[in-house]
Amino acid sequence: MRLIVGVDLGGTTIVVGTLTEDGSTLYGLIEEPTPGALGPEKVIALIGAMIHRSIEATRSECGDDVEIAGVGIGAPGPLDTARGVVIVTPNLGWRDVPLRDLVATATGLEATLDNDANCATLGEWWRGAAQGAHVVVGMTIGTGIGGGIVLDGEIFHGASDVAAEIGHMTIDVTGRRCKCGNYGCLEAYASGPAIAARAVEEIEAGTASAIPALVGGSLDQVTARIVYQAAHAGDALALEIVRDTARFLGAGVANLVNILNPDVIIVTGGVTRAGNLLLDPLRIEVARRAFKPAVQACRIVPGGLPGTAGVYGAVASFKVQRWGRA
Amino acid sequence: MRLIVGVDLGGTTIVVGTLTEDGSTLYGLIEEPTPGALGPEKVIALIGAMIHRSIEATRSECGDDVEIAGVGIGAPGPLDTARGVVIVTPNLGWRDVPLRDLVATATGLEATLDNDANCATLGEWWRGAAQGAHVVVGMTIGTGIGGGIVLDGEIFHGASDVAAEIGHMTIDVTGRRCKCGNYGCLEAYASGPAIAARAVEEIEAGTASAIPALVGGSLDQVTARIVYQAAHAGDALALEIVRDTARFLGAGVANLVNILNPDVIIVTGGVTRAGNLLLDPLRIEVARRAFKPAVQACRIVPGGLPGTAGVYGAVASFKVQRWGRA
Repeated sequence: MRLIVGVDLGGTTIVVGTLTEDGSTLYGLIEEPTPGALGPEKVIALIGAMIHRSIEATRSECGDDVEIAGVGIGAPGPLDTARGVVIVTPNLGWRDVPLRDLVATATGLEATLDNDANCATLGEWWRGAAQGAHVVVGMTIGTGIGGGIVLDGEIFHGASDVAAEIGHMTIDVTGRRCKCGNYGCLEAYASGPAIAARAVEEIEAGTASAIPALVGGSLDQVTARIVYQAAHAGDALALEIVRDTARFLGAGVANLVNILNPDVIIVTGGVTRAGNLLLDPLRIEVARRAFKPAVQACRIVPGGLPGTAGVYGAVASFKVQRWGRA
Repeated sequence: MRLIVGVDLGGTTIVVGTLTEDGSTLYGLIEEPTPGALGPEKVIALIGAMIHRSIEATRSECGDDVEIAGVGIGAPGPLDTARGVVIVTPNLGWRDVPLRDLVATATGLEATLDNDANCATLGEWWRGAAQGAHVVVGMTIGTGIGGGIVLDGEIFHGASDVAAEIGHMTIDVTGRRCKCGNYGCLEAYASGPAIAARAVEEIEAGTASAIPALVGGSLDQVTARIVYQAAHAGDALALEIVRDTARFLGAGVANLVNILNPDVIIVTGGVTRAGNLLLDPLRIEVARRAFKPAVQACRIVPGGLPGTAGVYGAVASFKVQRWGRA
């Protein structure tokens, strides 16, 4: 019985699991907060320990006749996937960390490295909501907006390993300032913090809303999650914010539909907690803005592997890098 | 000696030429206005006659020991490339025309069909300014803004043959109305007619400019070409319009750089007559807006095959479709 370990290294959590080669069964799924402040050595030591625990849990379920083929790692980028190096991660403060080889040394297992958002999209193609699709775009909408592109079961890396940077797509050339320094990026409107900021601006301008009561009057406690909660309860301002978010996201998704003509767009991340309050108007905006034959070809759906798409995709990426196919 | 005929069918002109298999020599290049108003039968009869003339011209240069392997056709879309059918062409008013097989019947030669903007990009990859590149985006900026994507020497078609519809990318979600009915499309700012319209708006609002004198006071005669002419002569309004165009185009190109991480972006079409007046500020805007590692990987250059990229690409597409590689 041959299995592969998947590691999804994020800015706030590390998720590790062990999958059968065909992706049909997941064993030993564990999650830990990322000790980012302690630096790469401590983080890599924790990853090594989690891999060990996940394999032990797998053996205790499957017996000792278990062969571990290797470890696939997904990490925030930009990366050099060929050399297995994390070039820069703003969230962790890393620079030029040879993560792949350090994990291989720590575990004695073969390892591969790929971008986390790419891995999540590949995971959805392999075992999630995008199975069988030829052109898949994944969007993860949380603190930032990340993206991945998968073409016929392989991650599309672009010319220098940084394709699918969709969060800083311009949708409003003279619009809101983004934390990247530019104006009108998708992320400046539709990321979690941008949703909260737009709600707070409206409340401070005097718009009536149930949102302040939900945070005991402390507007600095308003988060996107609070806004969705108020929207689900019928608050007019919150509903307007969610609708506007769908409109902004719809413009960005329509651009992806026009440029890439995907058969599936997978939407994941915290923002999807708004559910159909967000997805329905988003689909309408895309249908209004994008080229009709491309709209007709494209399903826009929530991810099918919440919390584990990155682990599935890291394993699938290991298979592609080592064996040529997931 | 084996050659392939390339046909570039446009809304205003048809260009036909015959290329050696390796693309090194072009023979029998001819161009005719497209008799669009006469309907598909007449257009296809003209294409057949032009192919015949191009082959005759080739034979008279190369002798009779010439084998014509087939005909590659590039045509405006959307198309069904697998079936060789033009589904709709707004400029020609065609619907469901089996162009590939009609040309094959008219000439007795094997034929293939692909989208014209895709072909132009493939032509630049094969024999133009994008040779050796892995990820190429082509942009043709004229009456509209067309696009093509070539990945490792093959046209990227997307899930349903309509990828690279870049003209209707939203860059200003609440912006100018586009003739497609939406607001803020790149084409509403940076196409030839949009450039002329922005100049006329400013002049009508009272801005001083040399442009009215160039058209004898008839503002309905202002074209993008007149605006570039005034800009080259130092007219302040025209220079501002060209700089603004570069800024809008730069936002669109930055989106393509962020999403696709290309190693080359080829800019062609009438707008490029503005030369470095346009390209220099365009490159600056892209560098300001796009992700730095993606900017560093990407050259933004004018096309290397003016007027013939479509013919080269139609031939290259024939080779890919029939023989697996250009």
